[in-house]
Amino acid sequence: MTDVIKVAVLGASGRMGSEAVKAVESAEDMELVAALGSGDSLDRTDGAGADVVVDLTVPAASEENVRYAVEHGMHAVVGTTGWDEAKLDRLRGLLEEHPGTGVLIAPNFAIGAVLTGKFAATASKYFESVEVVELHHPNKLDAPSGTAAHTAREIAEARRSVGRGPSPDATESDPQGARGAVVDDVHVHAVRLRGLVAHEEILLGDEGQQLSIRHDSFDRVSFMPGVLLGIRTVGQRPGLTHGLDGYLDLD
Amino acid sequence: MTDVIKVAVLGASGRMGSEAVKAVESAEDMELVAALGSGDSLDRTDGAGADVVVDLTVPAASEENVRYAVEHGMHAVVGTTGWDEAKLDRLRGLLEEHPGTGVLIAPNFAIGAVLTGKFAATASKYFESVEVVELHHPNKLDAPSGTAAHTAREIAEARRSVGRGPSPDATESDPQGARGAVVDDVHVHAVRLRGLVAHEEILLGDEGQQLSIRHDSFDRVSFMPGVLLGIRTVGQRPGLTHGLDGYLDLD
Amino acid sequence: MTDVIKVAVLGASGRMGSEAVKAVESAEDMELVAALGSGDSLDRTDGAGADVVVDLTVPAASEENVRYAVEHGMHAVVGTTGWDEAKLDRLRGLLEEHPGTGVLIAPNFAIGAVLTGKFAATASKYFESVEVVELHHPNKLDAPSGTAAHTAREIAEARRSVGRGPSPDATESDPQGARGAVVDDVHVHAVRLRGLVAHEEILLGDEGQQLSIRHDSFDRVSFMPGVLLGIRTVGQRPGLTHGLDGYLDLD
Amino acid sequence: MTDVIKVAVLGASGRMGSEAVKAVESAEDMELVAALGSGDSLDRTDGAGADVVVDLTVPAASEENVRYAVEHGMHAVVGTTGWDEAKLDRLRGLLEEHPGTGVLIAPNFAIGAVLTGKFAATASKYFESVEVVELHHPNKLDAPSGTAAHTAREIAEARRSVGRGPSPDATESDPQGARGAVVDDVHVHAVRLRGLVAHEEILLGDEGQQLSIRHDSFDRVSFMPGVLLGIRTVGQRPGLTHGLDGYLDLD
Repeated sequence: MTDVIKVAVLGASGRMGSEAVKAVESAEDMELVAALGSGDSLDRTDGAGADVVVDLTVPAASEENVRYAVEHGMHAVVGTTGWDEAKLDRLRGLLEEHPGTGVLIAPNFAIGAVLTGKFAATASKYFESVEVVELHHPNKLDAPSGTAAHTAREIAEARRSVGRGPSPDATESDPQGARGAVVDDVHVHAVRLRGLVAHEEILLGDEGQQLSIRHDSFDRVSFMPGVLLGIRTVGQRPGLTHGLDGYLDLD
Repeated sequence: MTDVIKVAVLGASGRMGSEAVKAVESAEDMELVAALGSGDSLDRTDGAGADVVVDLTVPAASEENVRYAVEHGMHAVVGTTGWDEAKLDRLRGLLEEHPGTGVLIAPNFAIGAVLTGKFAATASKYFESVEVVELHHPNKLDAPSGTAAHTAREIAEARRSVGRGPSPDATESDPQGARGAVVDDVHVHAVRLRGLVAHEEILLGDEGQQLSIRHDSFDRVSFMPGVLLGIRTVGQRPGLTHGLDGYLDLD
Repeated sequence: MTDVIKVAVLGASGRMGSEAVKAVESAEDMELVAALGSGDSLDRTDGAGADVVVDLTVPAASEENVRYAVEHGMHAVVGTTGWDEAKLDRLRGLLEEHPGTGVLIAPNFAIGAVLTGKFAATASKYFESVEVVELHHPNKLDAPSGTAAHTAREIAEARRSVGRGPSPDATESDPQGARGAVVDDVHVHAVRLRGLVAHEEILLGDEGQQLSIRHDSFDRVSFMPGVLLGIRTVGQRPGLTHGLDGYLDLD
Repeated sequence: MTDVIKVAVLGASGRMGSEAVKAVESAEDMELVAALGSGDSLDRTDGAGADVVVDLTVPAASEENVRYAVEHGMHAVVGTTGWDEAKLDRLRGLLEEHPGTGVLIAPNFAIGAVLTGKFAATASKYFESVEVVELHHPNKLDAPSGTAAHTAREIAEARRSVGRGPSPDATESDPQGARGAVVDDVHVHAVRLRGLVAHEEILLGDEGQQLSIRHDSFDRVSFMPGVLLGIRTVGQRPGLTHGLDGYLDLD
């Protein structure tokens, strides 16, 4: 890899992809060598000398795109969803045959959101109570958000690791369900408000103190520092990394 | 009424009552002339020359206490619950016979909580979306809190008065109830955390903006400024006033 | 005025003006009959039959624009700055000669921001302590923001009206100025953060309780409901109204 | 050390000390064997068979207390202030002669506050902007708080470690100092409000996103989980540990 990282973006005309194109073009240590749409041939990536392929396409295409990248000596940074255990296992097998190649698959490129989940899980080991509130625009179809449910599971796992049970709750009467969803023993509340985008707050409480960690995402552009971090790091991390937190220095 | 207001506190050994005793004793413009427990005779109030009787007893005793006060020419400030429409009607009738006497019955003496409800209702006429979050200690038995449900109803009434319907909500999938309770078309969420006391936040959203109003009650002492305001004002407000907001200058 | 309000926008190519053009076009009860840029002749407004002129131009032009509107029988809604007392006095004089005509001059059309200021002033009469925090993007040149300074002055005036002095403060050592600016005896703090737009929070405290009122403005579009409210109301409010709060129902 | 940890509390009649006595008495895995006031002889600690000495006294006494503990084979958990580098160096020398003995000196036992500082420093490496707001009761004499200044320095050090400079700030006009104190290139704001105790919020911003971390301390009891963690851990950590974060599992 030369000093300047040569980058090919797949899914370049999508919402995330078009932001990634702009971000790569603005980064002084990167060069955009290819921007592919859905009909374009994958050989335009290695053909242009790409070091790193950024896959922001659709679940049906992502596995083949990554396979192509790995087999042609390119690292891959992947933001496409749909990577189940079977796909991940096949990818791990492929990477064993290409030991110098790195792949990052990140369900969430917002560094702030990833840090929020990590901090919440760490803190929840030391606090008696913890709940999650997510807030989104009112056009969202599902509740709670995938990010909030993921955070709840990270918290539950961290608490189990130190022998902590569920948060205390003496509620006897809640006829209308004000206490919200319970995901892996953690209460999760979903607020919908016009004007909001995507927000998550974790509330932790103990005798005499409270700790609150909140992430506000106002714009898709908030994912780009994470994408650029992935592009810069993936070449030094052979094998599969699942989750952007693997690239963050949390000490 | 002389310059210094002579005050009798009923229920003086209870949690609210003992705080009220301290607050009256500390107020320079008041004199505590009687502090009655549950077995004490009511004639110790007018016997001591009280101008105002503060009733912080129990639902079973409150109506008789207030009747005694009115019939003996004393104003009354009442924080006891259980005043239903039948009791209120009887009291209104009694006050017509005593046109110079004032009674304040206030379900909530925390000025901040009362202002929060009023502000939220006013603002909700101008915002597309509104939801209520209440947060309490984990020993609370019911959800949502009475205050939050009351706020939701105030909001709903204010919105109906200007022809606003429910807040927009596209949720199609919410299998675990993360969207919380719906009180009079307003979503209400209840959080329980060790270390908290009683807190309420109203979130309002519209295109490009959000308005948040939050009240935190850390201690029972937060009710005392409202009690003192009631004692100072009740003598100038003949008849029945229901709710502390009737004594607040909201302009 | 017919059922549909005919609107002319002055300064239609500016940032606020272009948003206003879109908002008027989207309102079912309005018709955009003229959109003027800086070189356009004012007779295109009454020439097109406008009921209401919206002035979103520059201080040097605004007074003449409003004079033209009033003299030609059109109401005016004005968001341009620079209206000092001399200009306002001349306008009041002119409106006396045109008793059926209304003018609204509003320094801030964000209903949420206006409500925030009003609520803060009202509440500050009942709380011992109050401070203001404003938060903006880091490209802002001045601190504190004009809105925050205005809020501080509204609060100070409200407190004086009930005989309340400054908030208590025992600070003896503050070598680096952490306590922020003091505007009319009210502490004002200015935060600058990448990713923010324009935000204001008023914090009120008393024994055992806190009240927080926060307004977040994420986008210029947040001013449009206020502009539309002005257009709809100005025809029923002859004379000069200064400040959007004059059109809000705060009860 | 047996299954139950035998604990001696020094400074047992002070504010922190009396809370520690209660906390140790309530802990099932501990036994309070001695509670010493200022006049009591130190030999009542090893005389009672203490495993761990908790020093919550005054700067003038703390060094001698800890020396006594180490020389008599007891571990020490120290919350007293005033440990400068000279004292720490002498203690390190002493501990080399007692290689099995552990001492924890913690300026802050509130686990939430310690986590807040750590999280803020970590996150500040990934965000363009960061500022600190601390909020306290109005009787506090100095601003900013020591905790906030410490957090600012931790943040500045973390940012320097990754080559990040100060947060962006275009402010040209700030005649009254609304931008607050600047501690090691980090802006720190101090709010004073009746009803508050001790609170700290770190605000981080980047394009399109914000991360907020807030710690609220309502009561001295919030320090006790940290004291108990120290008592439980100090026996397994020979040598000197400075700062409770050395005992926290931050992964």
